[in-house]
Amino acid sequence: MKKTSVRTRVLTGTVAALAAVGVGAVSASAETAETPAAPAAVKVDTQNKNLAQSTGLTIDAATRAAQAALDAATKAGQHVAVAVVDRDGVTRVLLKGDGAGPQAPESAERKAFTAVSWNAPTSELAKRLAQAPNLKDIPGTLFLAGGAPVQAKGAPVAGIGVAGAPSGDLDEQFAQAGVAALAK
Amino acid sequence: MKKTSVRTRVLTGTVAALAAVGVGAVSASAETAETPAAPAAVKVDTQNKNLAQSTGLTIDAATRAAQAALDAATKAGQHVAVAVVDRDGVTRVLLKGDGAGPQAPESAERKAFTAVSWNAPTSELAKRLAQAPNLKDIPGTLFLAGGAPVQAKGAPVAGIGVAGAPSGDLDEQFAQAGVAALAK
Amino acid sequence: MKKTSVRTRVLTGTVAALAAVGVGAVSASAETAETPAAPAAVKVDTQNKNLAQSTGLTIDAATRAAQAALDAATKAGQHVAVAVVDRDGVTRVLLKGDGAGPQAPESAERKAFTAVSWNAPTSELAKRLAQAPNLKDIPGTLFLAGGAPVQAKGAPVAGIGVAGAPSGDLDEQFAQAGVAALAK
Amino acid sequence: MKKTSVRTRVLTGTVAALAAVGVGAVSASAETAETPAAPAAVKVDTQNKNLAQSTGLTIDAATRAAQAALDAATKAGQHVAVAVVDRDGVTRVLLKGDGAGPQAPESAERKAFTAVSWNAPTSELAKRLAQAPNLKDIPGTLFLAGGAPVQAKGAPVAGIGVAGAPSGDLDEQFAQAGVAALAK
Amino acid sequence: MKKTSVRTRVLTGTVAALAAVGVGAVSASAETAETPAAPAAVKVDTQNKNLAQSTGLTIDAATRAAQAALDAATKAGQHVAVAVVDRDGVTRVLLKGDGAGPQAPESAERKAFTAVSWNAPTSELAKRLAQAPNLKDIPGTLFLAGGAPVQAKGAPVAGIGVAGAPSGDLDEQFAQAGVAALAK
Amino acid sequence: MKKTSVRTRVLTGTVAALAAVGVGAVSASAETAETPAAPAAVKVDTQNKNLAQSTGLTIDAATRAAQAALDAATKAGQHVAVAVVDRDGVTRVLLKGDGAGPQAPESAERKAFTAVSWNAPTSELAKRLAQAPNLKDIPGTLFLAGGAPVQAKGAPVAGIGVAGAPSGDLDEQFAQAGVAALAK
Amino acid sequence: MKKTSVRTRVLTGTVAALAAVGVGAVSASAETAETPAAPAAVKVDTQNKNLAQSTGLTIDAATRAAQAALDAATKAGQHVAVAVVDRDGVTRVLLKGDGAGPQAPESAERKAFTAVSWNAPTSELAKRLAQAPNLKDIPGTLFLAGGAPVQAKGAPVAGIGVAGAPSGDLDEQFAQAGVAALAK
Amino acid sequence: MKKTSVRTRVLTGTVAALAAVGVGAVSASAETAETPAAPAAVKVDTQNKNLAQSTGLTIDAATRAAQAALDAATKAGQHVAVAVVDRDGVTRVLLKGDGAGPQAPESAERKAFTAVSWNAPTSELAKRLAQAPNLKDIPGTLFLAGGAPVQAKGAPVAGIGVAGAPSGDLDEQFAQAGVAALAK
Repeated sequence: MKKTSVRTRVLTGTVAALAAVGVGAVSASAETAETPAAPAAVKVDTQNKNLAQSTGLTIDAATRAAQAALDAATKAGQHVAVAVVDRDGVTRVLLKGDGAGPQAPESAERKAFTAVSWNAPTSELAKRLAQAPNLKDIPGTLFLAGGAPVQAKGAPVAGIGVAGAPSGDLDEQFAQAGVAALAK
Repeated sequence: MKKTSVRTRVLTGTVAALAAVGVGAVSASAETAETPAAPAAVKVDTQNKNLAQSTGLTIDAATRAAQAALDAATKAGQHVAVAVVDRDGVTRVLLKGDGAGPQAPESAERKAFTAVSWNAPTSELAKRLAQAPNLKDIPGTLFLAGGAPVQAKGAPVAGIGVAGAPSGDLDEQFAQAGVAALAK
Repeated sequence: MKKTSVRTRVLTGTVAALAAVGVGAVSASAETAETPAAPAAVKVDTQNKNLAQSTGLTIDAATRAAQAALDAATKAGQHVAVAVVDRDGVTRVLLKGDGAGPQAPESAERKAFTAVSWNAPTSELAKRLAQAPNLKDIPGTLFLAGGAPVQAKGAPVAGIGVAGAPSGDLDEQFAQAGVAALAK
Repeated sequence: MKKTSVRTRVLTGTVAALAAVGVGAVSASAETAETPAAPAAVKVDTQNKNLAQSTGLTIDAATRAAQAALDAATKAGQHVAVAVVDRDGVTRVLLKGDGAGPQAPESAERKAFTAVSWNAPTSELAKRLAQAPNLKDIPGTLFLAGGAPVQAKGAPVAGIGVAGAPSGDLDEQFAQAGVAALAK
Repeated sequence: MKKTSVRTRVLTGTVAALAAVGVGAVSASAETAETPAAPAAVKVDTQNKNLAQSTGLTIDAATRAAQAALDAATKAGQHVAVAVVDRDGVTRVLLKGDGAGPQAPESAERKAFTAVSWNAPTSELAKRLAQAPNLKDIPGTLFLAGGAPVQAKGAPVAGIGVAGAPSGDLDEQFAQAGVAALAK
Repeated sequence: MKKTSVRTRVLTGTVAALAAVGVGAVSASAETAETPAAPAAVKVDTQNKNLAQSTGLTIDAATRAAQAALDAATKAGQHVAVAVVDRDGVTRVLLKGDGAGPQAPESAERKAFTAVSWNAPTSELAKRLAQAPNLKDIPGTLFLAGGAPVQAKGAPVAGIGVAGAPSGDLDEQFAQAGVAALAK
Repeated sequence: MKKTSVRTRVLTGTVAALAAVGVGAVSASAETAETPAAPAAVKVDTQNKNLAQSTGLTIDAATRAAQAALDAATKAGQHVAVAVVDRDGVTRVLLKGDGAGPQAPESAERKAFTAVSWNAPTSELAKRLAQAPNLKDIPGTLFLAGGAPVQAKGAPVAGIGVAGAPSGDLDEQFAQAGVAALAK
Repeated sequence: MKKTSVRTRVLTGTVAALAAVGVGAVSASAETAETPAAPAAVKVDTQNKNLAQSTGLTIDAATRAAQAALDAATKAGQHVAVAVVDRDGVTRVLLKGDGAGPQAPESAERKAFTAVSWNAPTSELAKRLAQAPNLKDIPGTLFLAGGAPVQAKGAPVAGIGVAGAPSGDLDEQFAQAGVAALAK
């Protein structure tokens, strides 16, 4: 069965991946040390059958995508904010471009959140409100064009949101430029 | 149709892990459909070089750990709440046990959040405040005994927090019972 | 010592129900004791005429219901979050299933809250908006299918909410599976 | 075993209690009906083994206690706010007395919340911070004198909080006057 | 000119009124004194020309009104929460009646807030949305029947809100019963 | 008795005062009318025995005080924010001066809130923490020098807060300049 | 190229402007010093190519505009709140006029925020909802007449919002009076 | 058409800076247009005497600084989040690096906010708490090493915050690397 083999790979080969996504606590003895020495951590490691892997963008990829979206907007003479959120809806990158209005950053984050939550561009999702108008009352969402999912094997791994252009369709073009940058 | 083939690929490729952590958007034509048909999603899949894997608990494992912590508390005659959060600090499981006070659930979540953030039990982390007292002002944290990290290869993959017993040391014993359940 | 005698009284009186829903404060002398000895509590017990009983689910029942809802979703290939709230709208159980989107947990909690508040499935409640559209502006609510009340003698004692499936009708099927598990 | 007998009592005698704490949804055909006719609720009633009873104050008792606390303050020439919260920390009664400052209502609610959470007067709880100083970082709490638990058979069933007098000791005297009113 | 005469009266006779609405800080030497002795307050009193009087309910009146609204609901077999807010929208009295749902208290407060803000019953205000639908996006408001203003000389001095009955019209009847109690 | 005479005066002369503090709802038939014609308000006026008067600053006075505080800061070469809150803690005037840091406005509001709540300068109140350290955990407060109460007949009618200067003592000098402007 | 010349001006002439908008940290040795001596700040000054200038109102201008809006309302017998926000949406001036309802201040701030975000009066923006109804879900916005942008060379540098009059059209007249005061 | 001429004026006047920081509203006729054509904006331009310039980083510079800080951390084997805020405390860039804990992003933003508010590194500011311990209660701040101001002519124009390394001193080294990147 596949799932087991996945776990096997976790055992044999994913240490680097784990290192890549970090450990978080390393001792230090600095005077203002936030996490001083000798953590005395729990010794018991969890079993592999208990683990699942999830896929996200590296910070390098997320930054590249956000920059590509911002560049596309700048080229079009638009002043926008760009957000990249991971599959958990957590912001990985936020760029508030020159001249973007104060409403833009949170709007961008919510479009990205919405796109990754339903794995579809927010321009599509906004149309679904005709059938289920209260979808837009779900906390954290924004059903305005300008959000696009980033997919790996068809599954959503991130969302890119853009806000600040005079139309949501323009915002979404820029978001798609960000997605496209990840396909190269 | 595309979406089905996506699932097929999920089954056959290395992306079983992706299946494990889910897809999230499947079409449906129900009357009150929240995510109706034909999402017209972005076609471009992101490249592997852009991707990083992260490790977390399955919901089965997280539930088992939370239940084990609650059982340990009940056996000791204590009334507690138990939380399991993932590496992103997002709650996977919350159980407010019978008779737990109103302060217990959020206290449990914060202890779990704190433990996974610094990859150490909160009893240890509370001692670190002697050197860096303002650590406890970081939003979302609680520096009280009762939180324990769950580790895979030494890296934090989840946090378990317990609150409601008359002492934090008791709370942490129960949290550790939850961790221990994952080692079996 | 006082506190022990309190427990003794709990054991011997009609307050077994109270014991079931817990006491909350028991002394302990641990070094990091959160609630140390000798509370010197108020001596006056309130009279029975001042008291009302309310009914809720045990944590065992609430967990079983949530698990049944999640199992039903998993069987149907859906990735969801499940919440069980009590009559006061307080979350007793939250399970964020594997692959559930970031919007799912709060959506599930709000559906459960809405169902227990009006003692009706949220699919029914959503229809009521035709007459009273501003109902949906009440804080904490979500008028999307997926929430179901748990009743005892016809009165609401809990709410179960599910979110994450492509349609609210599916979500509500899973929620009802959770309710049904309590009838066995 | 006690727990079973509790359930038995639930079966035989608690119907009135259930009625007393309400149903919440009754049909009505008013033009702006918030909860219109024929809820089509779930038919399955949960089993008794799944239920637990909890004890709280009636609104009459809670109001009487709050009024007694306010009267005691007025008699002493003090301007205060009074809050009564239930075992879940939810406010049942809030009175902002004439001349009470803007900080008083939330302060009163938090003192009440803290008292019911640990089943002890907040003057006692404040002393416990010497051993566990971070207890006061638990959300919703306030470790200032002025809160008192209401007990039934030694278990906390409500909390009364008073704020606004020049000293917390005075506030707590008034809160205790509220508790005492329930013993008559 | 009227305004001056008002100020004159303030000079000659309103000291009692000021006392009635309180001072807030009186010295005390209790061990846990919240406001210890010798405040060394600013010596300069503001001039009368700088002052304006505003009118509100006494806490006795506000409590009587809230109780009357709750009694009316109880008589009708409904389980509601009642709130009385002052002209500033600040809650003076909150009663969560027996059996009221968890959504009721905040709903009642918002209805009261809305009624006092526009000096009209919320059933009337809800109709105004036909012309200005975005009024309901103003923070703190709720455009559902159930709120009624309390007036003195036609000006709003308080708002009473009721929530929890199956229709807003019923809620508003109870709120009006609260208003009527102040006319006796 | 004083209180009655106050009410008598309310009956005979306070209409202008009521007008002064506003009515709030006047009909209008504008296209986007927020509060359209014929409110059909409740006819019953509340009785005088139910009413209490409270004293506050006019907006003219509050603005003058805030401006005086800001001018004093500017003269001293400091960049600050100034807030004036009423006896209910509600902001009447907020001025974010040129060059004031982003932390200044809320800091100024909280200092003003704290000063009016305890009717004392915040420099005094900060000293009281030596005896009652947890006072500072009351929501909305800030125990830093820079807040001063405005008094009428010794009772607090407003608070002025200043933030942004390099020391709280300087901030409080500016706040006192604001208070002093009301004595002229 | 223009941008370079801007930077050149920054080099040669903007020091005064920088002084005008403040430094924020000056040493002081007062007893309660918030920012004591010897900041030991980073020595490296950023390069001019890294800098952009943005334009806002002086606090004097912002206050004058707010006062003009309030005066216009008072002249019309209306009781309103007025807010002036800068290009970043941050409140520079808030005036809660005599008799303004509790809903007015935040409503005014949101109208001002909305006007500056889209550089158009909110009466215009409200019409745009016909095409893009979900625009109004962007956090911080309010699509009700009463907000007006302040422009310099056509670009938005501030927003003025007014709330509390019986129609949004009236509110916007007052806001425009505030804008007009800046043209003199 | 007006809007074009506006841009022309931007090009020719001293307002190139305005162009640099953007305009924000340009018409568009897209189907889902967020800001459709013909805004009919207020015609009155504010006078120069009313305007003040403020200095900030371009998004290019802010991104470069954030990237430099992140690179320094990565080189040192640390997993951190980096934030760059402007003089108003608004986030311009946020990067949550690979493996950074869930507490890191908000911690980084608050350190950056604190550094720009007082124009000093947070390691310095933390020492100031010895004299003024309640400074740390100002909302939005965090007095932990890891924040550094960006200065132009000695005035703060931005703040850089880093969080996630085992000591605040390490975090601050990385933040300073970000500042240094702007000096090249």
